[in-house]
Amino acid sequence: MSIIPSFPLSVSGSRFRVRYQILGDEKTARARAEDICIEQTIEYPADLVPEGGIREHVFGRIETFESTGPDRYETVISYADEISGYEFPQLINVIFGNISMKPALRLMALDLSDDLLSHFKGPRFGVAGLRELIGEPQRPLLFTAIKPIGLSAEQLADMSYKLALGGLDIIKDDHGIANQPFAPFKERVPRIVEAVAEANAKTGFNTLYAPNVTGPFETMLERIYFAKEAGVTGLMLLPGYCGLDFVRRVAEDDSINLPLITHPAFMGTFTLSPDFGVDHFVLHGQLMRLAGADISVMPNYIGRFSYSRDDCLRITDGCAVPMGQLKSIFPGPGGGISPESFADMVTVYGKDVAYLVSGNLHRESPDLTQNAARFREIIETI
Amino acid sequence: MSIIPSFPLSVSGSRFRVRYQILGDEKTARARAEDICIEQTIEYPADLVPEGGIREHVFGRIETFESTGPDRYETVISYADEISGYEFPQLINVIFGNISMKPALRLMALDLSDDLLSHFKGPRFGVAGLRELIGEPQRPLLFTAIKPIGLSAEQLADMSYKLALGGLDIIKDDHGIANQPFAPFKERVPRIVEAVAEANAKTGFNTLYAPNVTGPFETMLERIYFAKEAGVTGLMLLPGYCGLDFVRRVAEDDSINLPLITHPAFMGTFTLSPDFGVDHFVLHGQLMRLAGADISVMPNYIGRFSYSRDDCLRITDGCAVPMGQLKSIFPGPGGGISPESFADMVTVYGKDVAYLVSGNLHRESPDLTQNAARFREIIETI
Repeated sequence: MSIIPSFPLSVSGSRFRVRYQILGDEKTARARAEDICIEQTIEYPADLVPEGGIREHVFGRIETFESTGPDRYETVISYADEISGYEFPQLINVIFGNISMKPALRLMALDLSDDLLSHFKGPRFGVAGLRELIGEPQRPLLFTAIKPIGLSAEQLADMSYKLALGGLDIIKDDHGIANQPFAPFKERVPRIVEAVAEANAKTGFNTLYAPNVTGPFETMLERIYFAKEAGVTGLMLLPGYCGLDFVRRVAEDDSINLPLITHPAFMGTFTLSPDFGVDHFVLHGQLMRLAGADISVMPNYIGRFSYSRDDCLRITDGCAVPMGQLKSIFPGPGGGISPESFADMVTVYGKDVAYLVSGNLHRESPDLTQNAARFREIIETI
Repeated sequence: MSIIPSFPLSVSGSRFRVRYQILGDEKTARARAEDICIEQTIEYPADLVPEGGIREHVFGRIETFESTGPDRYETVISYADEISGYEFPQLINVIFGNISMKPALRLMALDLSDDLLSHFKGPRFGVAGLRELIGEPQRPLLFTAIKPIGLSAEQLADMSYKLALGGLDIIKDDHGIANQPFAPFKERVPRIVEAVAEANAKTGFNTLYAPNVTGPFETMLERIYFAKEAGVTGLMLLPGYCGLDFVRRVAEDDSINLPLITHPAFMGTFTLSPDFGVDHFVLHGQLMRLAGADISVMPNYIGRFSYSRDDCLRITDGCAVPMGQLKSIFPGPGGGISPESFADMVTVYGKDVAYLVSGNLHRESPDLTQNAARFREIIETI
């Protein structure tokens, strides 16, 4: 009756493990776990697959299944490394492709095999490398986004100069500043590079500048090479638009060799329900790290977003949890960071954190340099 | 006090409109609407922005705000076309970038200006063009995914041959068949092209073959050009990994000139809650069309996914709703299509639909050609 022939498959035996939360009573949850094993691999009626290589090696395997609360279970499912084709997009596809369309399932954690991880270079700089670049061995980093949309390249450069003079560690474009006619990318980037360099020459600091390279597919690498040539010292990428794998592509490129900031725009929906989607730990931590982010911008638990303290703790974990040879990275909380919140935030993020400050930095006084210097002064005492 | 200078801005006056659903009592909902106007544009304290160009032209504008039920409102917010920079990624970013991270907000519909739409080519073929290519002026189309992972290139080619012989309109790779060692892309694609051509020569039909080109960034265009050279007659792209803008890039390329199927893997979470995220109408309809899909694969309301009949009706609408010069496209429902469901589905999808059949196609009998022919026979009577 079966259309699929029975035959042996050549596989290494190395497997990667994925932890999912599943809602439902025990019977329903177990059926959902079994469904993941099929939906994420063969996506084919399991009863039509004979004994043999496909059933043995291609099907996902339930490794553990346990209750974590009323009608709430966690399961670890393993997959043969080969199913990923050792390519990042297909790896994500096995982990959460089709089941992103199913309710009651949440991706909680990745535990990739050393063999699979050996195909990933991960963050080029990571915490230690970025600290070295900036020359700041210990304290939390401070970075800001220049904005708003509507300012000219000259005005943005002027703002960057003033902020760099105050000693912020990194200046980046706002994620909404792309290539609008008000401040086109190729006009803006060289001006800001120059402004930040001028400030660095005065302060002796090494403030980095990371432009936002959001743009059409055809332009992305071209803009990056243009920016590199112009002298930028970092880049910001938005994987919600360019894809996580593009971040990997840029991180791996020796001719680019720049620290990467990722911004989660258009990806937030994954985390919003505790009942489905992708947990903060994976989305802002493990996935951004696999992609090669050095700083993963994320909503802070204090401010205008709705992440909880626990959500942010899990992101901090995801940025540092052992993942083979992958370097640990900075969580980059933003969305309402104020000097008053530093004391509490140190209990969540520790010191390996990059605080994204903007609104409150502009609110303190009309003197941006003085405001930036005050933020820096405070952070130095943390 | 303000750091932002007051100055006039040169804008066209053309604006695009976005409809959002907002939860909360009237006061809360109105505050959330006002917040969208800021969060999606200047992302900066509004009170620090003086009268003048930025306040007048860059801020989003609430055009309408009305109750649609208890603690449920809908608002239309307009944005100056210039904010998008006339680039697709930044357009999506204005529409739903940062607020994807906020609860109680759902993206319901896009109403783009003619001027902005003139920067988009949209689907190359659309319903009429794809019908002409296949030679089928009227009835619903039938397509299938060859699988499972683990089969060799030869076995997949054999399966394709048998299915094409039965007269299916399109054969595509399963979205999980990427570049695994079992059937590497460059080995698989030419074999399947040949198999489908051989079947076409016998049947006189023009069954298309669309490989799945999921792969690392560096390989995507290379694989597409390789496939084109090998003679494929369609392509499948997964915007959850390659980005929606890559679909646009491929759709616009005259040297590729192939119909595109998009698959929503890793994007389903957007639609799962009726309270936040992106509505089915936008995600599977309007956005895929803007990107240039000719068929938008989507979960059917009958089968193993959880979409409702209404959800699927809205997708059908989003595939055909007037959007300037953009062609209408085929919704591609899948996930448990059976011959028994055709009668009801015609009331949801009409005839401009492409049914993605797979599991049930393999279950009917061990003779794949006979099964495919029977599906075709049934669809011809719809």
